[in-house]
Amino acid sequence: MKAKRVSIVEVGPRDGLQSEPEVLSTNSKAKFIELAIDSGIRRLEVASFVHPKKVPQMADAEALISTLPQRDDISYIGLVMNQRGLDRALATKVHEIGMVIVASDTYNRKNQGVSTAESIDAWYTIAKRAKESGRRATVTISAAFGCPYEGEVSIAHVVDIAKRVMEVGPVELGIADSIGVAVPTQVSELIAALRHSIGNETPLRCHLHNTRNTGLANAQAAIDAGVASIDASIGGIGGCPFAPAATGNIPTDDLAYMLSRSRIETGVSLHKIVAVSRWLERELGRNVPAMLPKAGVFPEPDYQERPKHEAV
Amino acid sequence: MKAKRVSIVEVGPRDGLQSEPEVLSTNSKAKFIELAIDSGIRRLEVASFVHPKKVPQMADAEALISTLPQRDDISYIGLVMNQRGLDRALATKVHEIGMVIVASDTYNRKNQGVSTAESIDAWYTIAKRAKESGRRATVTISAAFGCPYEGEVSIAHVVDIAKRVMEVGPVELGIADSIGVAVPTQVSELIAALRHSIGNETPLRCHLHNTRNTGLANAQAAIDAGVASIDASIGGIGGCPFAPAATGNIPTDDLAYMLSRSRIETGVSLHKIVAVSRWLERELGRNVPAMLPKAGVFPEPDYQERPKHEAV
Repeated sequence: MKAKRVSIVEVGPRDGLQSEPEVLSTNSKAKFIELAIDSGIRRLEVASFVHPKKVPQMADAEALISTLPQRDDISYIGLVMNQRGLDRALATKVHEIGMVIVASDTYNRKNQGVSTAESIDAWYTIAKRAKESGRRATVTISAAFGCPYEGEVSIAHVVDIAKRVMEVGPVELGIADSIGVAVPTQVSELIAALRHSIGNETPLRCHLHNTRNTGLANAQAAIDAGVASIDASIGGIGGCPFAPAATGNIPTDDLAYMLSRSRIETGVSLHKIVAVSRWLERELGRNVPAMLPKAGVFPEPDYQERPKHEAV
Repeated sequence: MKAKRVSIVEVGPRDGLQSEPEVLSTNSKAKFIELAIDSGIRRLEVASFVHPKKVPQMADAEALISTLPQRDDISYIGLVMNQRGLDRALATKVHEIGMVIVASDTYNRKNQGVSTAESIDAWYTIAKRAKESGRRATVTISAAFGCPYEGEVSIAHVVDIAKRVMEVGPVELGIADSIGVAVPTQVSELIAALRHSIGNETPLRCHLHNTRNTGLANAQAAIDAGVASIDASIGGIGGCPFAPAATGNIPTDDLAYMLSRSRIETGVSLHKIVAVSRWLERELGRNVPAMLPKAGVFPEPDYQERPKHEAV
């Protein structure tokens, strides 16, 4: 069941950058994406189509996408919350439409101004229109492991949303730990419940934040449960330095290290990803949360660490 | 096989503090241990008996231990590398003698001045003398997942050391990822190999560092494999700020959060542990690496986080 190959979906250009206080230039974003591709990433969330007043960091979505290289082996994802976002996305060359539905009603209203049920209804039209336009359409159920407003989100509730979404099947179903509260047991249980309910055909993807240090443990649990696509951001960016509880996605660097050392292929070069993290540090003017860039790849011919006094 | 209860062994007073540049006063160390006990910790590594010139942070081992409360439900561990350390430890009221044997010869020589084989020989005498003195004696095989000098350490090599150590059985066998290079697959494989070779009777303990962000994932893998004792340090201290690659143990705070939310009992109060981390931050004059103190316990009646613009 466990995959021999895992696809790391790079979400740094969208989820990472939208939470950074600085707005990178369109050129810098394009460079970021180019460097990620050169490191072996083949699927990227490049923008979200939301109101520029709400998320100024994404205001240049169309301009950015128009500059990106179009290659058969690379897929760009654009996030949408509603029909207006879809209109904008379909006018660009994104290959995938990623629809977001928040599991908790309060958070969905704050995030996209309507109830969860209304977002599910919107999905049916979005799925149809995306398909007509020849794009792959996916759904991510966010706050699937807990909500900042409503607290616990039950497995039964997420499964219920998934079943309704599956009536007009997405090509992939994502589950997101938007606020970083999940633990591995919860990941395993939710995936088992989803598989029991929606079957094994539709691939699952996990979107995890490392807010409470459990991000990589959750990724491992997802992979153990057969999930073969994991969202991550290079450097683990997305932790707004002014909001201490808002941390970034799990770092692509550290996830790629864990998988590489576990003999799971990702196609990603550890050294190149670390170099992109260092580039990001220069662009953002501060250190990124990823730990591989600090600690170094192990083992290396030139591996050198400074051991502590005692070896235990 | 998976435990319903996991014992968190607090190693902050030893492994944490020995890697901090500041030397805490004996009083502060005693306060640290008192606060840890008040948070529910029942087993603690309180000192190592090494030459004070080598590790000045541990120079007050005897003075510290003489001030600690003696309670039937609390066990203090003192680390030793050789007979001289054992002499000192036996003159104190520590309940457990923790012997360290480094899996790689180069690192063992740098750490304790003799070969791995010589340390195994020393263990036979140490085990006998500890037993005669009524102390529990344990062995930790360190650098069991990789060595900063020799690179990869094979499972076969660790199993071989374990078998030789078991000839004079420790009450518990520890395996340590001293430099934080392990990944969950490796943890599972090593534990399976050890169980196959030494049987199921002797409990295993895991000692993990979060150097490459895989620490909690490794802890989960160990627990899934039946390990019921995990070393951790409150706040995740031990990451010397002047040596970027030297990070602390996995944080007690974050480990306790993961286990609590997984319905595994630890006896540890999350709120109290977080308060100890905050106390440590004041003592050390800087932030600790643990993430629960920044992010907060979830869910809480007064839970408040600042969600990002988008919920995914």
